[in-house]
Amino acid sequence: FFKQKTAYDIPLRLVGSEMCIRDRTDTGSAKSKVINEIENILPEFIHFVPGHPIAGTEMSGPDAGFEDLFDNRWCLLTDHGSADKEAQNKVMNFWKSLGANVEFMDADHHDLVLAVTSHAPHLIAYTMVGVADDLGKVTDSEVIKYSAAGFRDFTRIAASDPTMWRDVFLSNKEATLEILGRFTEELFDLQRAIRTENGDKLLNYFTHTRSIRRGIIEAGQDIEAPNFGRDIDQN
Amino acid sequence: FFKQKTAYDIPLRLVGSEMCIRDRTDTGSAKSKVINEIENILPEFIHFVPGHPIAGTEMSGPDAGFEDLFDNRWCLLTDHGSADKEAQNKVMNFWKSLGANVEFMDADHHDLVLAVTSHAPHLIAYTMVGVADDLGKVTDSEVIKYSAAGFRDFTRIAASDPTMWRDVFLSNKEATLEILGRFTEELFDLQRAIRTENGDKLLNYFTHTRSIRRGIIEAGQDIEAPNFGRDIDQN
Repeated sequence: FFKQKTAYDIPLRLVGSEMCIRDRTDTGSAKSKVINEIENILPEFIHFVPGHPIAGTEMSGPDAGFEDLFDNRWCLLTDHGSADKEAQNKVMNFWKSLGANVEFMDADHHDLVLAVTSHAPHLIAYTMVGVADDLGKVTDSEVIKYSAAGFRDFTRIAASDPTMWRDVFLSNKEATLEILGRFTEELFDLQRAIRTENGDKLLNYFTHTRSIRRGIIEAGQDIEAPNFGRDIDQN
Repeated sequence: FFKQKTAYDIPLRLVGSEMCIRDRTDTGSAKSKVINEIENILPEFIHFVPGHPIAGTEMSGPDAGFEDLFDNRWCLLTDHGSADKEAQNKVMNFWKSLGANVEFMDADHHDLVLAVTSHAPHLIAYTMVGVADDLGKVTDSEVIKYSAAGFRDFTRIAASDPTMWRDVFLSNKEATLEILGRFTEELFDLQRAIRTENGDKLLNYFTHTRSIRRGIIEAGQDIEAPNFGRDIDQN
């Protein structure tokens, strides 16, 4: 599991803080499994404060960073029984100094929230892009040529780093499978509404889900630009 | 089906062209069903040229338009047995005058391509937002507060006009159900890979689908801005 050690175990002095070798954090997207495994490895005098900044794009590597990457974004730190309060404060202040808002939560809860907001959507996007590609062999480049807004957004999500996402799904297996189970249950229900031409059910469902978008814009997590800031001439 | 007549039947003189009452087009997202129904209604001297501009945002209504909405976007016109060539040319030139690229295709083929690139992705996005909302009742506003890139993109897709999307699914029922069937088949396969911790399978799948994103950027259908043009300070 820890083949890619640097992804899960970051001595804070390497990232420009004053913290010494005793205090470590990470930026991984799943927490419960990492905490269980790392706590068995670390000597008692090294404190581990699990962290997860919710920021970034589909790009990866050092060149994918930009100045305000963490500005006004959330960084979730998770609490566990043996956590050291002083180390937690240091890590919290480190993230705040990068412009992030910090919140502590239980690791299991973190993993469920992230399965909903990130992990399941990513697997779904990967899948839809795969389906389109199967069909793309039939229709040549048409799937790409006419990639309307819906599919275009899925391809952006599915362009994220494959190795990182493999590790995310393996380390947050339970919560991801739970959410995917709920998802297919609900999708089948809507499929049946299409098959039986139950227009009222579709309309009510779409009206309800639309309102959630409003909440995200009000929470400052996205902007409402009419073209999503995607003018062709910016290319 | 034609309760919302204006959505399916647009006399071209209303949209500022020189075309007379004989030539009509539409901008709907599904074609086969519309063609079958409208051809039975129209008198012989009125020519119907089905059209579908692939452009727009999640906003709707007159205020959702902007100057370069159709610039460099595709407008698909569908061919059918009784189509009038002169009327087709007029409609083609009308869309070209708005800056769009025009292509003709068979109506069934159009409906399948759109089911992949737009209709299925929209239903999936609506469903995922619905699942998150079910869970949101448990976790209060957390789902929105921590809506990382994946879910945030789904909410934008799912913010589209509910009435329009109900009609899209009802009028492109067969192709949408066919694509959703393929989608769940493939999703179950990936779910099983997570459950059995088959990391190689996940990595290969994600690596393959990632490359499709490259094709979309090269086809000029999207830009590669590191933050998708979503700077918070644009808000």
